[in-house]
Amino acid sequence: MDNPPVPRILFEETVRKALLEDLGEGDVTTRSCVPPDVSARARIVAKEEGLLAGLFVAEEVFRQLDPGLVLTKKSREGGFFSPGDVLLTIEGRAWSILQGERVALNFLQRMCGIATLTRKYVNRIKEKYCRIVGTRKTTPGLRCLEKYAVRVGGGFNHRFCLSDGVLIKDNHISACGSVREAIERARANASHTLRIEVEVTDEKELREAISAGADVIMLDNMSISNMVECVKITKKLAPHVIIEASGGVTLDNVAEISATGVDVISSGALTHSYKSIDLSLKLNIL
Amino acid sequence: MDNPPVPRILFEETVRKALLEDLGEGDVTTRSCVPPDVSARARIVAKEEGLLAGLFVAEEVFRQLDPGLVLTKKSREGGFFSPGDVLLTIEGRAWSILQGERVALNFLQRMCGIATLTRKYVNRIKEKYCRIVGTRKTTPGLRCLEKYAVRVGGGFNHRFCLSDGVLIKDNHISACGSVREAIERARANASHTLRIEVEVTDEKELREAISAGADVIMLDNMSISNMVECVKITKKLAPHVIIEASGGVTLDNVAEISATGVDVISSGALTHSYKSIDLSLKLNIL
Amino acid sequence: MDNPPVPRILFEETVRKALLEDLGEGDVTTRSCVPPDVSARARIVAKEEGLLAGLFVAEEVFRQLDPGLVLTKKSREGGFFSPGDVLLTIEGRAWSILQGERVALNFLQRMCGIATLTRKYVNRIKEKYCRIVGTRKTTPGLRCLEKYAVRVGGGFNHRFCLSDGVLIKDNHISACGSVREAIERARANASHTLRIEVEVTDEKELREAISAGADVIMLDNMSISNMVECVKITKKLAPHVIIEASGGVTLDNVAEISATGVDVISSGALTHSYKSIDLSLKLNIL
Amino acid sequence: MDNPPVPRILFEETVRKALLEDLGEGDVTTRSCVPPDVSARARIVAKEEGLLAGLFVAEEVFRQLDPGLVLTKKSREGGFFSPGDVLLTIEGRAWSILQGERVALNFLQRMCGIATLTRKYVNRIKEKYCRIVGTRKTTPGLRCLEKYAVRVGGGFNHRFCLSDGVLIKDNHISACGSVREAIERARANASHTLRIEVEVTDEKELREAISAGADVIMLDNMSISNMVECVKITKKLAPHVIIEASGGVTLDNVAEISATGVDVISSGALTHSYKSIDLSLKLNIL
Amino acid sequence: MDNPPVPRILFEETVRKALLEDLGEGDVTTRSCVPPDVSARARIVAKEEGLLAGLFVAEEVFRQLDPGLVLTKKSREGGFFSPGDVLLTIEGRAWSILQGERVALNFLQRMCGIATLTRKYVNRIKEKYCRIVGTRKTTPGLRCLEKYAVRVGGGFNHRFCLSDGVLIKDNHISACGSVREAIERARANASHTLRIEVEVTDEKELREAISAGADVIMLDNMSISNMVECVKITKKLAPHVIIEASGGVTLDNVAEISATGVDVISSGALTHSYKSIDLSLKLNIL
Amino acid sequence: MDNPPVPRILFEETVRKALLEDLGEGDVTTRSCVPPDVSARARIVAKEEGLLAGLFVAEEVFRQLDPGLVLTKKSREGGFFSPGDVLLTIEGRAWSILQGERVALNFLQRMCGIATLTRKYVNRIKEKYCRIVGTRKTTPGLRCLEKYAVRVGGGFNHRFCLSDGVLIKDNHISACGSVREAIERARANASHTLRIEVEVTDEKELREAISAGADVIMLDNMSISNMVECVKITKKLAPHVIIEASGGVTLDNVAEISATGVDVISSGALTHSYKSIDLSLKLNIL
Repeated sequence: MDNPPVPRILFEETVRKALLEDLGEGDVTTRSCVPPDVSARARIVAKEEGLLAGLFVAEEVFRQLDPGLVLTKKSREGGFFSPGDVLLTIEGRAWSILQGERVALNFLQRMCGIATLTRKYVNRIKEKYCRIVGTRKTTPGLRCLEKYAVRVGGGFNHRFCLSDGVLIKDNHISACGSVREAIERARANASHTLRIEVEVTDEKELREAISAGADVIMLDNMSISNMVECVKITKKLAPHVIIEASGGVTLDNVAEISATGVDVISSGALTHSYKSIDLSLKLNIL
Repeated sequence: MDNPPVPRILFEETVRKALLEDLGEGDVTTRSCVPPDVSARARIVAKEEGLLAGLFVAEEVFRQLDPGLVLTKKSREGGFFSPGDVLLTIEGRAWSILQGERVALNFLQRMCGIATLTRKYVNRIKEKYCRIVGTRKTTPGLRCLEKYAVRVGGGFNHRFCLSDGVLIKDNHISACGSVREAIERARANASHTLRIEVEVTDEKELREAISAGADVIMLDNMSISNMVECVKITKKLAPHVIIEASGGVTLDNVAEISATGVDVISSGALTHSYKSIDLSLKLNIL
Repeated sequence: MDNPPVPRILFEETVRKALLEDLGEGDVTTRSCVPPDVSARARIVAKEEGLLAGLFVAEEVFRQLDPGLVLTKKSREGGFFSPGDVLLTIEGRAWSILQGERVALNFLQRMCGIATLTRKYVNRIKEKYCRIVGTRKTTPGLRCLEKYAVRVGGGFNHRFCLSDGVLIKDNHISACGSVREAIERARANASHTLRIEVEVTDEKELREAISAGADVIMLDNMSISNMVECVKITKKLAPHVIIEASGGVTLDNVAEISATGVDVISSGALTHSYKSIDLSLKLNIL
Repeated sequence: MDNPPVPRILFEETVRKALLEDLGEGDVTTRSCVPPDVSARARIVAKEEGLLAGLFVAEEVFRQLDPGLVLTKKSREGGFFSPGDVLLTIEGRAWSILQGERVALNFLQRMCGIATLTRKYVNRIKEKYCRIVGTRKTTPGLRCLEKYAVRVGGGFNHRFCLSDGVLIKDNHISACGSVREAIERARANASHTLRIEVEVTDEKELREAISAGADVIMLDNMSISNMVECVKITKKLAPHVIIEASGGVTLDNVAEISATGVDVISSGALTHSYKSIDLSLKLNIL
Repeated sequence: MDNPPVPRILFEETVRKALLEDLGEGDVTTRSCVPPDVSARARIVAKEEGLLAGLFVAEEVFRQLDPGLVLTKKSREGGFFSPGDVLLTIEGRAWSILQGERVALNFLQRMCGIATLTRKYVNRIKEKYCRIVGTRKTTPGLRCLEKYAVRVGGGFNHRFCLSDGVLIKDNHISACGSVREAIERARANASHTLRIEVEVTDEKELREAISAGADVIMLDNMSISNMVECVKITKKLAPHVIIEASGGVTLDNVAEISATGVDVISSGALTHSYKSIDLSLKLNIL
Repeated sequence: MDNPPVPRILFEETVRKALLEDLGEGDVTTRSCVPPDVSARARIVAKEEGLLAGLFVAEEVFRQLDPGLVLTKKSREGGFFSPGDVLLTIEGRAWSILQGERVALNFLQRMCGIATLTRKYVNRIKEKYCRIVGTRKTTPGLRCLEKYAVRVGGGFNHRFCLSDGVLIKDNHISACGSVREAIERARANASHTLRIEVEVTDEKELREAISAGADVIMLDNMSISNMVECVKITKKLAPHVIIEASGGVTLDNVAEISATGVDVISSGALTHSYKSIDLSLKLNIL
């Protein structure tokens, strides 16, 4: 098995827990009905179209259950698949395949769902410089896999967690007293490797953020016209500042938002409200 | 804090991992901007309507971060909430609240999403005896919480895992040679505490399953008219057998399916393709 | 190494903990006396007769310590062995063999003990349909291995845990008010994949249980004559109901119990009061 | 809850795993039949006589499930109990008591079994200086609790693990070439905090061990008359050397062995072939 | 116990593992000599001067062993202490204090060592804007505590880990072909929340880095005169760029380095070659 | 990969945690700049002289990240290296090498630091029988690796943890009332496999310890002349007793201490105040 795009050490425990969760004390149906030495060939087949993300996680599921299974990728990670396309074949002990089926699909159909949805957003954005980014609204326990799926879809990642970015939100501002004070404290204390991002809700805050030296400014839940105005002000006063739009982003309005000139559009829905892609595993006894 | 409806030991490790995933090496923004001794009062507020499930998980998030936080439930688990309703208040150290915010919401908005969607299905079913049940198509790592959310919505649970139910599927049948052989092996080997369920795709298999003594029969991806016929046959030949419909269940067709007389309708979409409910945390410095 | 009869993922952590428990900070005797590059050949030898269960766990012990060891099975899992029989040979680094010796034997002698005892019970039962089943009175942490050993002995498994069977006991009945109420609540709420089992102590409760629709009825600590009577009533009123005898089962009375016509006899002693089989590891320096 | 005799940190994870093993995805019977807010009072009652060991582990089981339960010890750890004696009462939420019942009993009945059996051995030994000691033939995962139970019974502990004692066995001797060489290497390399123990099978090895400066000598599987002779030789040549008898120790011969004048008698059966003490939990709804 | 400056969830597992590592199977000396119910009062006393960091970790050690211990801080976290100063008093069960002593001191003396050393560096730097920062050369397993200790000493943190900063080093540059190419790829792919830092070894690379738009430039192992020149160039061409000096920083040369005008000085020695501060625990039986 | 000198099971989890700590959510720099399929050859090179300890831990780091890396030892574990010497080469995927670099070096430079320092102490001791031993003042989480590094340096290990040695200290004595009482209790209760060591501070306690039958006596923080006197007394009264010097041992006085005739000299500084050896990883793209 070749190297996965996400370091295996970051997800192998997640896979192990998922297998234990699904096995319980063992697969009583298979143990009761199927002789232990039966061999089979199985295919993971797409039942609808989508963008392939996470094949290596499905492989890890089967690898953990039974290193003797022969896994063969039939579709390219990051490529589109159509209904009927085979994504992966698994050959070996039938018990092992049947025990891993559901867990492998549970990971794969979710990751494909995120990648597919992200790609839809990306395709609506005409401005080449403008990024769609996923947020921290990920499924508990699956963040690094979901963040990866967003990247497969052509999106980018906002912060991975609370320690790899400074994002000053309304609550921080109210604790500090002002946008300026919050930015100054962040600059005084945070690592020099991190940009200082601040959330603003109107032009006044925007100007204060720029003047206090914010590196990234998030326009929070603004109307399109407000965004246009804020972009204009920022380009004039501080052209190096990165502008992010956030809040209420949908497939319907993302093109309009990107047309305002913002650099980054963040969307929680990429990871909190996607639809799983329908996949199934077909098995033939050998 | 009172006893949660799901034993805490079943989800406290899941919460712990989620917190570690989101904290990384610590909340650099809060640490940089907010003095450590600031107190605050926060509210988790609904931004859309839904059915409340998982408040105890949000509580566990804050409890693990800081046992000194005062948590007060403002809405009833299992009840409906409207936009603007407060679900939970948290009072205490601002640092702790800000560090737990995202993780608490990530759990809660998903569990409410599942419960809310399940309730929609339940409301479409007129037959009192007929159950909608969730499957094993749950998010890896979150099964017991998602299964619970289905129950909050008025649904029931199919198997929790591979060891608490015998479900003979096409793959098992092909490994055994026939429906009859599969059922007989299952009866001979599985625990006497479990019912024997078998998946059938047509009348012939149905009759074979009944004759071989299946306890539960799953009608797999059948048309409405086939289901009607199968129910009729089963009621006549083996009235004690439980009939389950599975495959392609949607909000649009669930009423029609239940009207066929099946006892159980299973749906993976309850847990694999729900929409998170929009919630937010509002914080006031004290 | 071929596939074990129990999925490795279910016991590899148990083996790892056992090794860590026994190694402490390392094998000070071996490290002090034996050069690190000495090779050896070792045999696990039976010192008394028994039924072989758990050879794959012994293999896992050595595999975890040193993948370079060559392991060769010399007796068949599930077969009888006599004093002097060799069960497994291990060849490779002497350090690794000496470090794994005690842990491998600790697992193996217990699993063989359970299988051997179970087989004694099974051999006393003349009725082919009647099962001896192990209960949840297993050693904490070793349940799936002990349940497996019972199966090797020819026994069956009762519930694996609290979630894979409904077993209404006296405490549940008293909480519900009556046998009937308890059964009705269970049927209304539990998964349709599970049979409803109820414990009864006399004929009155038996009749109530049958009338309320129990699927399995456990006769709790009854005399032989009471059991005979209860079986007669059940066969007449509800021939499909499974009857289980429980309490005070011994090698001396199990034949008499099975002769009453019960379908299932459950015994905690299979896993809580067995005798370990005497095994030893003999090593020759190469 | 007061401090347990074994540091809680050494067994709380063991208890946690045992609870997870037994809960599976939750107690489906209790959840289906018993309302969540029912309170109860329960007693753990002895059904046969024994020596009490491990009450604090039973307490830990209930404490982990529900810190709101009120636990009251009714018998003294280390004291004898008779049939009908109450060991512990538990008062609080019925759900929590029912979920912990089996796990608490599984620990307690085993630990009492070991303590009770050990006490029987101790009572047969007349020589005050002579110790009965448990070996490393403990149940995987439960060593520190089983070692403790041996002490409750009046026994002592041999090595806890491979790092807290030097015990040169036949395999080490054959790897070193001679008893003398093995002892010299051990003295040269092992920590000065550990005594050097060596296993001998005859007088010749005994003399070599004494001459090489062994601190403890184990007489392995010797006849009574050989032991008498070996004790005589040792008392004469090296009165400070500790003599241990090992192999084939039973309740029937332990008095005779101790009468040979050995200082220590080691027995694996204390922990590998004990009988669980019969205990039960009786619950009353409040 | 009040809230620690580092979220407890980030270090409680580290403390637990350290306790298990030191307890082994239990404190045999204390168990053998000291009655279990003896109470004591203990003080952690400084035997040399230093800067206090990590008192909350010592508290966590004792809290995990025995929640009944009464812990009282006697010195201020972040303040200086002199020989003889009492840092913490612990009152309660003697067993618990003796079992935690070594682990508490092992953490505390290391964290104080780092803070004390960092403060020495900080005191040598005259330029108020110039930061001394610790690197990723921390002790495996203790990063978040060691990073915190650097902050207590007045230092700052460079990257916590590989995901919270972009630092392009010689190896990345050689893989990309040029400084420019590496910076452009980083900008194209990395999150917009992170600054782009690049390591340069001479003026040519510096100019290329500036021209390609690096946010932070690390001068790697340069002579003082080279640093002076590089600072001059950078201030002229790109005054917003942050300049970091790295390599060979010692207490002897840090003042000279800071005088070159660099913004940040990074030093691995703060965490890889500090000296533990001498502390001891004095106990009085009550 | 051949067998490591410390059983892998004792440190593989430590390595795993260290990798997770350093990877965070992944190596954003490498992922952004370096194509995933680039191959490289890297060397770990010494930048100063030292004694090699822990190469197998560095190997384990890379093995866990990517089993496809080819690792070749270039220097001998336990041997000296000079600046410029290559210790290990790693060949394979550049991503994997870059992700493991820092963790591998963090382990290796510390273990070499301890071994190198220990060897300096050893070289100062002229008396062949006299041992320098490391104490329990090790880094939390790294004890077994640090204890090993002391042995590589030619030192020995004192207790590994609280369960593998009896060491009666001032606090135990004060709890018992007298040195004699403490020793008698220890002998009465502790395992016969452990020597009884007691700490004394003057001649009076020394004589009491000898008379009570201590096996090992630690001279705590005595002057050289006191040590000489205590050695003389002990040799006369109890020549078999082992004498240990402890407290204030430095490279400057260790020769003088060993010349007093003590058998063992213990030093915490070997593991709490060593300097890491400077090592680096050089990488060439293939």
